[in-house]
Amino acid sequence: MKILVINAGSSSCKYQLLEMDTQSLLCSGLVERIGARAGCLTHRTYRDGREEKIVREHPFPTHEESMEEVIALLADPEAGVIKNKNEIAAIGHRVVHGGEKIAEPVLVTRRVKDIIRECFMFSPLHNPANLTGIEVTEKLFPGVPNVAVFDTEFGMGIPEEAYMYALPYSLYEELGIRRYGFHGTSHKYIAHRTAEYLGKAPGELCSVTMHLGNGSSMTCVKNGGCFDTSMGLTPLEGLVMGTRCGSIDPAIVPFVMEKKGLSASEVDALMNKQSGLLGLCGHTDMRDVHSRIEAGDKRADLAFNMLVRSVKKILGSYLVLLEGKTDAVVFTAGIGENDSLLRAAVCEGMEAFGIKLDRTENSARKPGARTISTPDSKIPVLIIPTNEELQIALATKDLLEQSA
Amino acid sequence: MKILVINAGSSSCKYQLLEMDTQSLLCSGLVERIGARAGCLTHRTYRDGREEKIVREHPFPTHEESMEEVIALLADPEAGVIKNKNEIAAIGHRVVHGGEKIAEPVLVTRRVKDIIRECFMFSPLHNPANLTGIEVTEKLFPGVPNVAVFDTEFGMGIPEEAYMYALPYSLYEELGIRRYGFHGTSHKYIAHRTAEYLGKAPGELCSVTMHLGNGSSMTCVKNGGCFDTSMGLTPLEGLVMGTRCGSIDPAIVPFVMEKKGLSASEVDALMNKQSGLLGLCGHTDMRDVHSRIEAGDKRADLAFNMLVRSVKKILGSYLVLLEGKTDAVVFTAGIGENDSLLRAAVCEGMEAFGIKLDRTENSARKPGARTISTPDSKIPVLIIPTNEELQIALATKDLLEQSA
Repeated sequence: MKILVINAGSSSCKYQLLEMDTQSLLCSGLVERIGARAGCLTHRTYRDGREEKIVREHPFPTHEESMEEVIALLADPEAGVIKNKNEIAAIGHRVVHGGEKIAEPVLVTRRVKDIIRECFMFSPLHNPANLTGIEVTEKLFPGVPNVAVFDTEFGMGIPEEAYMYALPYSLYEELGIRRYGFHGTSHKYIAHRTAEYLGKAPGELCSVTMHLGNGSSMTCVKNGGCFDTSMGLTPLEGLVMGTRCGSIDPAIVPFVMEKKGLSASEVDALMNKQSGLLGLCGHTDMRDVHSRIEAGDKRADLAFNMLVRSVKKILGSYLVLLEGKTDAVVFTAGIGENDSLLRAAVCEGMEAFGIKLDRTENSARKPGARTISTPDSKIPVLIIPTNEELQIALATKDLLEQSA
Repeated sequence: MKILVINAGSSSCKYQLLEMDTQSLLCSGLVERIGARAGCLTHRTYRDGREEKIVREHPFPTHEESMEEVIALLADPEAGVIKNKNEIAAIGHRVVHGGEKIAEPVLVTRRVKDIIRECFMFSPLHNPANLTGIEVTEKLFPGVPNVAVFDTEFGMGIPEEAYMYALPYSLYEELGIRRYGFHGTSHKYIAHRTAEYLGKAPGELCSVTMHLGNGSSMTCVKNGGCFDTSMGLTPLEGLVMGTRCGSIDPAIVPFVMEKKGLSASEVDALMNKQSGLLGLCGHTDMRDVHSRIEAGDKRADLAFNMLVRSVKKILGSYLVLLEGKTDAVVFTAGIGENDSLLRAAVCEGMEAFGIKLDRTENSARKPGARTISTPDSKIPVLIIPTNEELQIALATKDLLEQSA
């Protein structure tokens, strides 16, 4: 069974085609700058252990035209991986926000699209693009089921005292202001893979996942479900990120608006796009931050230390929420999987809490899921590579089989 | 040596007169609704183990007129505790915000008053009132030294990676946007008293102080100094409080402004005055919250659970920051000293972290500093009553002796 996974952004579209019988990736790609004068499609196929790359640079006026070109590439007589688009059994879409009405993956219906539309207010950049992606595949793959998988999925499982904010209760009732959590597909996948790796029943797992990438979030997993998560109403809350400030004194927001004469949407953009590592030291990529630190840049050093401290503090709160029953702490996503210096800094001084890093294992570069703590570390420290597309494809397949 | 301590608010003034030779309280009082049509002065004297109360209800047009009446009461031939206001050696003032320019207690000079004025922008309600209090005592006690003790004092000791926010660095440079911390007088006093109670050198103490009152904050004390604190640029950040929301997703602020059509100052007021326990369940006093819980009120139960969870999460982060070297965790202030149910809920499930509450000791009502953990609790859990006025008087006395 072949499943196409789509992650449509406002001016971009990421996709993967997966063969679910073997859980293998057939091809992946990215169309960038849709609607702009100069667009770009990068398409990769994986056959017989070899990767082939095709790059096409020309304008892609709409998502529909982009998808048409992707379909042509997928079924290309020479470069293609399928003969005909009819081989695609279903399409799984990443959708950022489902509000309170949908958390679990669902077959797309008119009602589901209405709900995605209702949630534009929570996710004004992503939800409209996600819906466009769905509408395009509905048109280009008539009769093929579309499944929506929500980034809020895993986080929606947290208890009331974790999802409510201490704001007037009416704001929750009127506007749905609550913690939703994001990166749910990754966190769910990692929780499942962690249980598998430890040989535990998924429903018994208690762990902390640190998804550290360009956007970063952490989840506290209790008995297999999400018990707390660091992102909130939006993906701004929690950790220091590439360009996002994470948690700050909320009174800073009106203060900055008044002193700098900013509007609500301008201060929102400042916190989401000009803050985080970028705001502190001018770089968003951790590799750049590290080379600046080596060059003696104090601001880069500060940015790194602040990121580490923000991770440690949330890790501490989650360890306490798990009451000493933590089965593992897990690093994942771009920074989590690749930045050994950051992992070392996060785990430093954590011996009293049962966390003891193996410095050699931590520094080694190896693929796949692995343990980077010492054998006598009470809590194993793991690296587990995330795979959101596979998780979306798995959810799509499950739903298809259930509804069959 | 007699020292008068003043805490001037916008329409109120709290005061205490202390005999520093015995560290004993001679009298205390509160003038309320200054400037309103109906004012009230409540004055208490403490003599020979007896407390006497005088209440005066009439308008108090200004802080100056209030203070004149207080002086008359202090030196009243019958009810007074001094013969003449000249017996007062110095006056200590609580000042909320000293910005980055002053942290330590200082003798008030013109320059100090200018700095307090510069910090109006950080503390628009309190700093102007604090300055008025100083100006009134300068006038009414000519020649008597005034000392300013800043609520930001203890929090100012935290390291750079704890006081910076991950916002554009220029906001720190231009506007001084950083974590300052508050309740510094209480946190400093408690750190000192904790070391004393444990028989440790103050400079070696590592502890966590939970100052839980109408406003609540926590500090992580490392080697006697403040290593982290939960309040930030303003006293809004951190824990769920009586009417304040504490930490929330900062993106909620522009979201609420846009959806509800609020201005910057309106959303600030919403977060500071209509949120917290009040916003969740309609009550700010924990005794009311508890009776509503007993009556089966689900919102009150939610409010309590959210407060407990916010304390536990910060406690967890501070335990991790102290790397397992925590000498004590300390409850103080109104809720911390009196609410045994809250203390029990905070400590529940903390055995794995070395915290084991003695249920009987916790439930007992006793005065003074005491231990409420079991003898085998690795980390002692303490109640230490706070005394901000005494701390201000001690700082005032120290400064007087240094400059003599």
